Amino acid sequence: MITLYHCHDARSFRPLWALEELGLDYELKMLPFPPRVFQKPYLEINPLGTIPTMLDQGKRMTESAAICQYLAARYGPTPLAVGVEEPDFGPYLNFLHFGEATLTFPQTLVLRYGTFEPAERKQPQVVEDYTKWFLARLRLVEQITGEQDYICAGRFTMADISVGYALLLAQNIGIGHHLPPNVRAYWDRLAARDGYLRAKAAQNTASEDQGVAITAVGPKP
Amino acid sequence: MITLYHCHDARSFRPLWALEELGLDYELKMLPFPPRVFQKPYLEINPLGTIPTMLDQGKRMTESAAICQYLAARYGPTPLAVGVEEPDFGPYLNFLHFGEATLTFPQTLVLRYGTFEPAERKQPQVVEDYTKWFLARLRLVEQITGEQDYICAGRFTMADISVGYALLLAQNIGIGHHLPPNVRAYWDRLAARDGYLRAKAAQNTASEDQGVAITAVGPKP
Repeated sequence: MITLYHCHDARSFRPLWALEELGLDYELKMLPFPPRVFQKPYLEINPLGTIPTMLDQGKRMTESAAICQYLAARYGPTPLAVGVEEPDFGPYLNFLHFGEATLTFPQTLVLRYGTFEPAERKQPQVVEDYTKWFLARLRLVEQITGEQDYICAGRFTMADISVGYALLLAQNIGIGHHLPPNVRAYWDRLAARDGYLRAKAAQNTASEDQGVAITAVGPKP
Repeated sequence: MITLYHCHDARSFRPLWALEELGLDYELKMLPFPPRVFQKPYLEINPLGTIPTMLDQGKRMTESAAICQYLAARYGPTPLAVGVEEPDFGPYLNFLHFGEATLTFPQTLVLRYGTFEPAERKQPQVVEDYTKWFLARLRLVEQITGEQDYICAGRFTMADISVGYALLLAQNIGIGHHLPPNVRAYWDRLAARDGYLRAKAAQNTASEDQGVAITAVGPKP
């Protein structure tokens, strides 16, 4: 059985969404955010205290986009993966990484120095620098989604989950109104998917069952 | 023919190292850093202006760890890749991502706000925050490399190139003296490899041939 440790709408939403798209059985364990502060025993499962942790077949994974690729490859064949023999295998891998390293990490700075840090440690310059940084990198997504419905391979894949999560986060931290029009339409396509809606419902149900309060990460747009 | 756009010791060193380990033919194009400032025509090849860009079979890739995985998968079979049927396929994908998203991105903040920004925009608090952040995440590598020579699968793989580049960067930006002992010994193993040394030599030769000055990114430890 696959076990996923998850905080509401955190990066671990990527593997949750992937599990729902694949229709796999899994156990969802909800944690308060950040777990390294509010749920210390979690450090025995993941010494870094980061989210997600996924356990499967005796192995541990902690990188959300990597878990999506893993699930599609190991539990396929599925159109959610792009095979090595397909022309868009390279872009598939590229956007799996791009969604996290290039589009998500900068937003964590906006969140940290704009919301989470106490007043005397807030850094408006860093918030501004990395909001700009994020929006500049998003131009590539704007260009691609102006020409095609999905980020690669002519269909919805795990790479869309990787990029899509960054767009969800942008809205949760209050910079969603900056999304350019093609990206906005792309996001609307992703968020209308049954798999996305099932993942959203799953985290809410599990939170209620496990008595974990849902914590909003920032202002809504 | 594979074409790689590269700046000295930048993230594009990952695919350069991977190409040398695989023994593939490639064309290396050296650029001054940052290319979006010093080599504007590069924006026609990569609108984001980021490094690396790799062109192969009519496709473009820009994420350094993804390119390493791509090369090993497309030009294999090779022991540098971990196959989906191997027990460490998950950890392989995980550390490909971890090396960039978790170990490299925080260092770019140290570099930006400690070195590149003008005096009035430097941010000592951010430099300190993300040096600590990087070293905290490195604890996982310290634990693993105390038990095994490589990061996964019992052999040198592309995941070691992803993590290894983060260790090279740490030294180039002046925080290498903080590396804990197992990580230090791990890095010494990686840096002694013929493939690593060939990649180092290749960027120096290409720089001389193409008249591109080598720019050190920060103080040496």
